[in-house]
Amino acid sequence: MADMKLPTRAEDFSEWYNQLVLRAELADYAPVRGCMIVRPYGWALWENITAALDGRFKATGHVNAAFPLLIPKSFIEKEKSHVEGFSPELAVVTHGGGEKLEEPLVIRPTSETIIGHAYAKWIQSYRDLPVLINQWNSVVRWELRTKLFLRTLEFFWQEGHTAHATAEEGEAETRQMVDVYSDFAWNEAAVPVIPGKKSDTEKFAGADTTYSLEAMMGDGKALQFCTSHNLGQNFAKAFEIKYLDKNGQLQHCWTTSWGLSTRVVGAMIMVHGDDQGLILPPRLAPIQAVIVPIYKTDEEKAVVMENAHRLRKELVDGGVRVKLDEREGMSPGFKFNDWEMRGVPLRIELGPKDVAKESVVVARRDRPGKEGKSFVAQQGISAAVTQALADVQKGLFERALAFRRANTIEPANYEELKKGVEKGFALAWWCGSGDCEAKIKEETKATMRCIPLDQTLGGVAQTGGGGKCVYCGQGAKEKAIFAKAY
Amino acid sequence: MADMKLPTRAEDFSEWYNQLVLRAELADYAPVRGCMIVRPYGWALWENITAALDGRFKATGHVNAAFPLLIPKSFIEKEKSHVEGFSPELAVVTHGGGEKLEEPLVIRPTSETIIGHAYAKWIQSYRDLPVLINQWNSVVRWELRTKLFLRTLEFFWQEGHTAHATAEEGEAETRQMVDVYSDFAWNEAAVPVIPGKKSDTEKFAGADTTYSLEAMMGDGKALQFCTSHNLGQNFAKAFEIKYLDKNGQLQHCWTTSWGLSTRVVGAMIMVHGDDQGLILPPRLAPIQAVIVPIYKTDEEKAVVMENAHRLRKELVDGGVRVKLDEREGMSPGFKFNDWEMRGVPLRIELGPKDVAKESVVVARRDRPGKEGKSFVAQQGISAAVTQALADVQKGLFERALAFRRANTIEPANYEELKKGVEKGFALAWWCGSGDCEAKIKEETKATMRCIPLDQTLGGVAQTGGGGKCVYCGQGAKEKAIFAKAY
Repeated sequence: MADMKLPTRAEDFSEWYNQLVLRAELADYAPVRGCMIVRPYGWALWENITAALDGRFKATGHVNAAFPLLIPKSFIEKEKSHVEGFSPELAVVTHGGGEKLEEPLVIRPTSETIIGHAYAKWIQSYRDLPVLINQWNSVVRWELRTKLFLRTLEFFWQEGHTAHATAEEGEAETRQMVDVYSDFAWNEAAVPVIPGKKSDTEKFAGADTTYSLEAMMGDGKALQFCTSHNLGQNFAKAFEIKYLDKNGQLQHCWTTSWGLSTRVVGAMIMVHGDDQGLILPPRLAPIQAVIVPIYKTDEEKAVVMENAHRLRKELVDGGVRVKLDEREGMSPGFKFNDWEMRGVPLRIELGPKDVAKESVVVARRDRPGKEGKSFVAQQGISAAVTQALADVQKGLFERALAFRRANTIEPANYEELKKGVEKGFALAWWCGSGDCEAKIKEETKATMRCIPLDQTLGGVAQTGGGGKCVYCGQGAKEKAIFAKAY
Repeated sequence: MADMKLPTRAEDFSEWYNQLVLRAELADYAPVRGCMIVRPYGWALWENITAALDGRFKATGHVNAAFPLLIPKSFIEKEKSHVEGFSPELAVVTHGGGEKLEEPLVIRPTSETIIGHAYAKWIQSYRDLPVLINQWNSVVRWELRTKLFLRTLEFFWQEGHTAHATAEEGEAETRQMVDVYSDFAWNEAAVPVIPGKKSDTEKFAGADTTYSLEAMMGDGKALQFCTSHNLGQNFAKAFEIKYLDKNGQLQHCWTTSWGLSTRVVGAMIMVHGDDQGLILPPRLAPIQAVIVPIYKTDEEKAVVMENAHRLRKELVDGGVRVKLDEREGMSPGFKFNDWEMRGVPLRIELGPKDVAKESVVVARRDRPGKEGKSFVAQQGISAAVTQALADVQKGLFERALAFRRANTIEPANYEELKKGVEKGFALAWWCGSGDCEAKIKEETKATMRCIPLDQTLGGVAQTGGGGKCVYCGQGAKEKAIFAKAY
């Protein structure tokens, strides 16, 4: 399908996204409305994401486990804000084994309740704390408007659930995971996320505090990359998660939860992609470099392919995820377009002249045309390609950061905010009132994304000393990001 | 809980198993009947199993993907035998987002139908074949009698689904996966499985042929370790999975499916465990060696712990999954029992005298008492431990094989078969008739496990030339294994 043109992003960003996901074979629609099939190329990308995160989780002391898919409906009802948040989104199992169930079961929309129930049983004493468990699974939320990767009825994610002896430890864990996610986003996904705190309106149903990482997409809209929740003692009280402290006193635990989903695949597409298709960050790309052999005659083919196989082996040995495109009956030009559409970071072109000169042409996916092309000697190819991949990784992050900065304003007044949110982020003084937040949303369709933890956004924004709320003019201590969002 | 005694296997094998699973913290019961929580120690074991298998799947050309959890109920009804087999076991979602659904959805009991639907869309031409996809997920089957790991409503597994151009390729794939699974069972799980063919009664609902790997548990009963199904064109016809062949003719594909589940954790427990607890095969054990420091005074503690940390680092660097048990307030004897119960293959004891002699005591879990203990020099500890782990791995396999052989008989007549299946396997001539199979089951409670692909069971059984069916006395060409089964 590489020969069909995508709509440009300027023409129709949404349709560019939809077609790209299908044509790059990342995902497909399932027969059940709003569900998604993640195809092998998309799943290989997700596997690289999970590996990068899982290593970070384990390095910070977490272990994995698996809690069940099915939750008694009554569990969801035990925590007041939780049930209000999730009730409208539940998938309910009423029959099993041909009979009507005594109590309906729900497919987990998230696992705080069932894990809370287990922790209440497992945790007895301060010696059992902290409990630091993560699980990789899928959850179901009955969304009305869906879009592949961004919002689907069933989605794939990880959910971490921890229990602690003190409020301080719970908050430290919540913040630690913000750091872990930020490190992943910046250094693996090459997405310059902004970590911050959610407003009460936007926080998780059942949390005391929610932190999120907000990213700017290629159309200037915001996407919540992932979240980390300080649940206080809300779930500990609802599920009786208690421990005996060192003084023999029974105390409620302090719990947290944090999650990152297949949404981030959508984020990477919308942050890095261009009108030719995907651009995947090298550290996560299933295929980091593709070798496209170029020949006309059988003699040329023999010479080129022999060299190509040798190059592939050298790159594999050097730790590069490389593919040699051996498909017959397709022109090199067709293959170039195909791999560009699929976002492979580097293309290695190899023709008879290159063989003779013992070199190759390396083309960077992030710099189309001649600018991104260079001749590279075959001697030491593996080191050169590894370096080029690092350059692309860095280039993608810097470009996304520059784009975000160029499309972020600090509005002096409400009129400027209104204009700013039409094309990007507005970092504005906010008094903290839910009323102002609601009015802004009603009038501009922009929501309060987060109060950035770093109010200067990396040293570029003017802050400090307090100001006046962009909406009501009352005193404000912090700036918040307002933007339209996915 | 290591201080409470398990029932012995001779006293009550089933209760020994149940208590061990809970006390070793492999799994726990979930609030929904028949569902299971896989706890971190159990999940770490499963992660090692998945890694060992996933590498083998990828080496044989397979890729991973993710198909949805929810399947329209009508899909299950499209393949006649499939619906008969699975209808009684379905969990049905009737409500979503607060409303009654137009068509009920089922939680996948297995994914042939939804994957068949996708393949029909993706496969157009012979160029698209073969399609070789696997997925790791969980499925739900409404079982009445459940047991942790062995049979649960929701269980974790992988399911491979492939499509091919010819019958021969389909059969070759089905058999290839039998080989892949056997290699895993023998060399990773140390379980001497017997690969064979299922009878028509025992085969998968919708398959032309089912192959399985049968293992003998510590009580002589059989357990089906995993299965590989040749689905012929049954699902291809039900779901219209067609391709244009090289001559431009439209043909139905030939499909296969194959799966291995968390059951194999139960199998490893029941094959290798003893009255003290688990014995995990080193290649899959989450912890391969545990260092237990022994000291009385603070001076001794300082000396021993300094040495213990050094040893741990050396073993980690040498690629050993090692744990240093630093728990305070527990005697070395308590720790010995605790790690024995959890099945850690090697225990490394380190006291002040060992520090002085620059050696350690290494105790093999599979050989209790003095027989399994040896002094090992600290110099080159990593190589010695790696060798000891390989010895345990080999020892477990050989012991299980010897046990299986000692409890397998070749009955000369039906009376001998009846006796044989009381304590193990009976490898008996069978005419192939479902009537004989049903009668044997009715009268002895033993089922036909498989027709072994290697009729000599590794050169020990007498076969060849044909014989007379152990039940009806008619001519028989093949021997089958009869046994009571989990």
